Amino acid sequence: MRMYDLIKKKRDGGVFSRQEIEFIVKGFTSGEIPDYQMAALAMAIYFQGMNIEETVNLTLAMVDSGVRLDLSSIPGIKVDKHSTGGVADTTTLVLAPLVASCGVPVAKLSGRGLGHTGGTIDKLESIPGLKVELSLEEFKENVKRYGIAIASQTEELTPADKKLYALRDVTATVDSIPLIASSIMSKKIAAGADAIVLDVKVGQGAFMKDLPSARKLAQVMVEIGRSVGRRTIAYITNMDQPLGLAIGNSLEVAEAIQVLRGEGSQDLINLCLELGSAMLVLGGKAKDKEEGKKKLKEALVSRKALEKFREFILAQGGEGRVVEDLNLLPQARFKESWLAKEEVYLAELPAERLGQVAMKLGAGREKKGEKIDLAVGLVLGGKVGDRIDKGKPIVTVYANDENRLKVALEELKACIKLSSTPLPPLPLILEEVS
Amino acid sequence: MRMYDLIKKKRDGGVFSRQEIEFIVKGFTSGEIPDYQMAALAMAIYFQGMNIEETVNLTLAMVDSGVRLDLSSIPGIKVDKHSTGGVADTTTLVLAPLVASCGVPVAKLSGRGLGHTGGTIDKLESIPGLKVELSLEEFKENVKRYGIAIASQTEELTPADKKLYALRDVTATVDSIPLIASSIMSKKIAAGADAIVLDVKVGQGAFMKDLPSARKLAQVMVEIGRSVGRRTIAYITNMDQPLGLAIGNSLEVAEAIQVLRGEGSQDLINLCLELGSAMLVLGGKAKDKEEGKKKLKEALVSRKALEKFREFILAQGGEGRVVEDLNLLPQARFKESWLAKEEVYLAELPAERLGQVAMKLGAGREKKGEKIDLAVGLVLGGKVGDRIDKGKPIVTVYANDENRLKVALEELKACIKLSSTPLPPLPLILEEVS
Repeated sequence: MRMYDLIKKKRDGGVFSRQEIEFIVKGFTSGEIPDYQMAALAMAIYFQGMNIEETVNLTLAMVDSGVRLDLSSIPGIKVDKHSTGGVADTTTLVLAPLVASCGVPVAKLSGRGLGHTGGTIDKLESIPGLKVELSLEEFKENVKRYGIAIASQTEELTPADKKLYALRDVTATVDSIPLIASSIMSKKIAAGADAIVLDVKVGQGAFMKDLPSARKLAQVMVEIGRSVGRRTIAYITNMDQPLGLAIGNSLEVAEAIQVLRGEGSQDLINLCLELGSAMLVLGGKAKDKEEGKKKLKEALVSRKALEKFREFILAQGGEGRVVEDLNLLPQARFKESWLAKEEVYLAELPAERLGQVAMKLGAGREKKGEKIDLAVGLVLGGKVGDRIDKGKPIVTVYANDENRLKVALEELKACIKLSSTPLPPLPLILEEVS
Repeated sequence: MRMYDLIKKKRDGGVFSRQEIEFIVKGFTSGEIPDYQMAALAMAIYFQGMNIEETVNLTLAMVDSGVRLDLSSIPGIKVDKHSTGGVADTTTLVLAPLVASCGVPVAKLSGRGLGHTGGTIDKLESIPGLKVELSLEEFKENVKRYGIAIASQTEELTPADKKLYALRDVTATVDSIPLIASSIMSKKIAAGADAIVLDVKVGQGAFMKDLPSARKLAQVMVEIGRSVGRRTIAYITNMDQPLGLAIGNSLEVAEAIQVLRGEGSQDLINLCLELGSAMLVLGGKAKDKEEGKKKLKEALVSRKALEKFREFILAQGGEGRVVEDLNLLPQARFKESWLAKEEVYLAELPAERLGQVAMKLGAGREKKGEKIDLAVGLVLGGKVGDRIDKGKPIVTVYANDENRLKVALEELKACIKLSSTPLPPLPLILEEVS
């Protein structure tokens, strides 16, 4: 078998066998197949696609390139959750303790933010002392003992995916549904979950810009899950505006804690109830989603979920008191609001633009490895359709640099659209794919 | 400007500006743009193509990556000739001295063979003592003094094309008309010719397998020539069967000498008269192709062309007596013919298969840099449609290894198709594009 012939085969619309895909993944991971051949193949796949069988085989070959986390010694059905990435997506910080507090073990490996999208690992680092780099043994031990662990992805799992993603990232071959689906699913399968709940974001601030693409991606991932015996459900959810109100690391942690206290933005709560109830059903802790939602609401009201979050923080070496005192989180030195001059309605909150404003404040990174400022970011005065009364903030900027603050306010005034007449809210949960 | 954005632009069907193409070619040649990004771009170009303006700009950017040969000190209109490559394409060895003997200076840089196709430089090395590696100064001096020089391509001309071609060769991105056209034309323009005659091969043994592709390639190259002020004519010629009768290096040199003596295969003679008369017209030495053909025939009959070939050989340090004594060329130790058991007609002489048989005998190389055997090869008993009388050779194999000879004969018997009834000959010159 020669890589040249395989590139040509895909270029001409051919379909790879399992053996061919294994040859490619093994050769690329070991370095026998050079980057330039893999880059040409990735572009050929971008144009010619891969069928579901090829995508499943690619997923499994990438899983087999590294260690598989064996969670079988932990009792219960382990349910993992993954979001395809958006702006202000604070779901994991709420969902993990919420679902864990209802008896479903959560073992979650997460990533860092890039560009306009944030990452759970960065956000968690806002909590003083909290350790995100766990060994696989510590990680498993925490899941076993506390029913919850969230740690940074390690080099030991799916090294092929890491190498391929890094190459796709610089060769404009990220936007390929079979490549996105196999990348996500290989990580979930290697991480050992028994069942998977996927949040496929669609809209202006997401990878998938339109519903048909998002639906296709969701279908392919659900199909991969089914093919490898992992029950998988996907929700397609709107990312035309940010999720919740806060954008920025410690601001989002604060918002998550507010939700766990039963406060916080209603859209974030609704999404957590939707995804969380599906996790409870898959985890065998609720007979249907109705019952699941009821249990989750009880866990919020009883503060069982908040306690689970404190327990998680302590288990990973963090300052547990943050769940009571948000002032223990990093605070920005400067804060300024754009106030409504008259009663207005929020018409457009373009997620990608807002994510970029937060990134430029220092909340995110343009390139991998860049240092970020955990304290800075934005808090919106409401969601699309909400009324902002005269003198109330449309948006508040948190910054550690006065110049950057000014620039951010200017940019926000240029991109947030207001209306003098009422508008309907945007739908949030668009479709379920299972 | 970032390479990433340019890859994405082409991937999405965008059109490059001149500045963008120069950025790509300069960055790739200097090594600032890594191979993997260029490979992804080449595959995107394979799928999305390039318009004529982009192709012209790519051609010129590759010319500017190296030295341009300045032939302006040599009097007369310098006419270059290029074939897109086929099996047994001995044209250059006949054409160069033939046209030079009629007063058109020929300055030709040629390449080596690869796969089933041969290369002029390999063939010339069959002539004892002949030097193919000339410095650019020697090369120009010979053209000035003798009106003819044929040398190996140097590293100084179009280094960008050399680097890009090597990458395309291992990433299945060779078969792209704008990339093929710009590669060929950049070399011709850098080599300093005032006018260019192109022989675009089409058929089973050529790069271009069908007439529409060949026509497109011819049109793009003629258009590039026009855009940069070089008069360019292309002929589309058949490569379903080999050109002439001999396949193999010294066997083809012998055949070229036979043609220059007024003997040899009629199809090879016809093609040389067609291309050569176009060269005389472009070179201002004939008012039309009719007159051009007349002059060429005179040069053959008077042996002026043969004398020019001897002069060329001597000028480059070779043994001039080969033009009288073909036994001075490398001779194979073994020779065996497949003889007709009864009167038959040649029905199919599949060029690519025959080229591969010759390659396996040692006449060609599978990979760059491999050593070849100049003495071995095949000589056909005729062309498609020709009658072979009982007891006469259908094909003769020349080998230096008895086993390889046997294998070759077996393969020839499997791929050459015979007919018991007469068949029409294949057309040779299909179209002129100017």
